[in-house]
Amino acid sequence: MSHTITQKPKLLARIRRLKGQMDAVERALEADADCADVLNLVASVRGAINGLTVELIEDHIRHHVADPDTDTDPHRAEGAAELIDVIRTYLK
Amino acid sequence: MSHTITQKPKLLARIRRLKGQMDAVERALEADADCADVLNLVASVRGAINGLTVELIEDHIRHHVADPDTDTDPHRAEGAAELIDVIRTYLK
Amino acid sequence: MSHTITQKPKLLARIRRLKGQMDAVERALEADADCADVLNLVASVRGAINGLTVELIEDHIRHHVADPDTDTDPHRAEGAAELIDVIRTYLK
Amino acid sequence: MSHTITQKPKLLARIRRLKGQMDAVERALEADADCADVLNLVASVRGAINGLTVELIEDHIRHHVADPDTDTDPHRAEGAAELIDVIRTYLK
Repeated sequence: MSHTITQKPKLLARIRRLKGQMDAVERALEADADCADVLNLVASVRGAINGLTVELIEDHIRHHVADPDTDTDPHRAEGAAELIDVIRTYLK
Repeated sequence: MSHTITQKPKLLARIRRLKGQMDAVERALEADADCADVLNLVASVRGAINGLTVELIEDHIRHHVADPDTDTDPHRAEGAAELIDVIRTYLK
Repeated sequence: MSHTITQKPKLLARIRRLKGQMDAVERALEADADCADVLNLVASVRGAINGLTVELIEDHIRHHVADPDTDTDPHRAEGAAELIDVIRTYLK
Repeated sequence: MSHTITQKPKLLARIRRLKGQMDAVERALEADADCADVLNLVASVRGAINGLTVELIEDHIRHHVADPDTDTDPHRAEGAAELIDVIRTYLK
């Protein structure tokens, strides 16, 4: 089950930003940057990976399980909305 | 939306074990145990918290969003099964 | 290598707070509280465990490796200060 | 304080592998791969980032704080060895 066409450009843009952040880590190491500076760059890559993960899981919930905005079953819509909140809290 | 009665005893048993692990951390500190030993005990508490979180989220998915074993919509059932696998991978 | 006597009361107070937070999780489950409410309580326990871990590791660095405030070697003092910052960034 | 020349090629090789893994995520999204497959690829990127972080922190400890293999103070050498073990446990 693939991601919808509408989400794809947003996700691809995120991944390209992430690749740019990894290039920055590579350049910092090549330029013999401070350990602390390299680790700060890696921490930002890690944050971006977590953000991408949350977005992918949220998309999966909306498109393949239940979309809180359109589900016709109010109990399932509320459960899905709570689930998305929980995923954001735990993975960010 | 509360947890079903069937899951409650299992979850309560997990929490009581966790409290026992916290008592062990407290006793280790009081007995001036090694830093490394205290940190190993805390790491096991952290693992147990992650395990409890995964179980609570899985229960939430099954009872308030979609149960892969009983959902009548096969696409939603498959989506929920994949979601539970993903949560286990990311939170454990 | 045990923790110094000065840190012990602070660490024990943290652990007792954590045990209080776990009691709150147990009471919430027993009272059939909302999944989302239980998960929020567990998220706060998880945050507190991470905070305790950071504090234990920082104490370990200061007392058994190098204390940035008192080390007579300025390179090691700076390295230890950077290390403590990194641990805080990654584990909180 | 930069990384030593001996560690640099190993770290750069790790980062290039990571960039290759990000390219795989990008190609999977472009090819409309399954959500679950994309999430598995992202999980492996996340694991690789954690591995890189542990290696950078360990290098920092060895080169800028205390090297357990060469430190002349046995208490500090033991403290640094325990610290490296703890970092590996908590960040992997």
